Amino acid sequence: MKLYDCHPAPNPRRVRIFIAEKGLTIETQQVDFMGREQLTEAYQAMNPLCDIPVLELDDGSHISQVNGICRYLEAAFPEPNLYGRDAKEQGLIAMWDNWVANNGIASVADGFRNFSKGLADHAVTGVRPYAQIPALAERGRQRTEDFFEDLDKYLGEREFVACDRFSTADISAFIALEFAQRIKLEPKEDQLNIKRWHQAVSARPSTQA
Amino acid sequence: MKLYDCHPAPNPRRVRIFIAEKGLTIETQQVDFMGREQLTEAYQAMNPLCDIPVLELDDGSHISQVNGICRYLEAAFPEPNLYGRDAKEQGLIAMWDNWVANNGIASVADGFRNFSKGLADHAVTGVRPYAQIPALAERGRQRTEDFFEDLDKYLGEREFVACDRFSTADISAFIALEFAQRIKLEPKEDQLNIKRWHQAVSARPSTQA
Repeated sequence: MKLYDCHPAPNPRRVRIFIAEKGLTIETQQVDFMGREQLTEAYQAMNPLCDIPVLELDDGSHISQVNGICRYLEAAFPEPNLYGRDAKEQGLIAMWDNWVANNGIASVADGFRNFSKGLADHAVTGVRPYAQIPALAERGRQRTEDFFEDLDKYLGEREFVACDRFSTADISAFIALEFAQRIKLEPKEDQLNIKRWHQAVSARPSTQA
Repeated sequence: MKLYDCHPAPNPRRVRIFIAEKGLTIETQQVDFMGREQLTEAYQAMNPLCDIPVLELDDGSHISQVNGICRYLEAAFPEPNLYGRDAKEQGLIAMWDNWVANNGIASVADGFRNFSKGLADHAVTGVRPYAQIPALAERGRQRTEDFFEDLDKYLGEREFVACDRFSTADISAFIALEFAQRIKLEPKEDQLNIKRWHQAVSARPSTQA
């Protein structure tokens, strides 16, 4: 296997942390995101969605999208389990991981991709030149702050994001916080549940990936 | 079990079709979306995310988000399989289902939620009053048309959305097309791969759900 990676970007890091939690070692190859290597014909032939990362399987086929790659790895290397052991855990982890993706990571992405000068006319992942929407960058910033408020509330009700043990939803939320630094946002000092959780997650060796 | 449902809305229908494909019968209770029942304190106590549908389990707990509910059902009722039999299928189905959710359903939702008069100041799911962004409604319409173009290309390469058999990604794409009618968009006449696929999916009894 080989992972087409982009070291500074949030979604590749989600996958690298997932791989580290599984105890796997997978060769990586860096993709030049700001140089738009992911929009070249060669890259599209491998991954028409133009997103990073991409996992190349040993049979030469490719899987992209964070959930696509991580679901492959969970099925191929079941332990340690990161998506749920029984039906209820499976449901709750998918629920909360989806919530983090759509309200945390996507909110920061709205704030970043609709503002960054390097992404003018590339406000949406993929080859098409969508223009930036300044009002959406602003809404993304507001939604990121609201995400922190909600996350702090939920982490007051349980130890980790989806349930009382570490799961893939914690990797996603950890990345949402890291990614938010790119738009100069972070949880408030009095969001103590996030602080407690973030210290616990940051102490895991996988987060060095 | 009980499904908190909203008959005219796209995401509850995704789950109803999934339930029908599993051959299950689950009691439903309608939620008054336009009357904003999902924003009431009683509903929030059950589902803080304020989205519809919600699955109530027999132990009295609740799971929301389409993927949360469907992953629960897949684990509790494994046959017929809708999320992939082996690791590679699991990865590809998660990849393409995510692509449809983020580029098909989310694009239509951008077009609908940022335009519909009934959703002024509720342009994002949840209790907070985010204002509509007209430029995002327009981008959502453009992205929906681009989604059709891409979907037609991919369906020229394989029989169904994720692989050569029906999966949950086909339910999501079917709903994207149905939802697009709300913003008066549909595939073009010459998108013949979509036409072939849509006829095959529409013939499944589950799509009557």
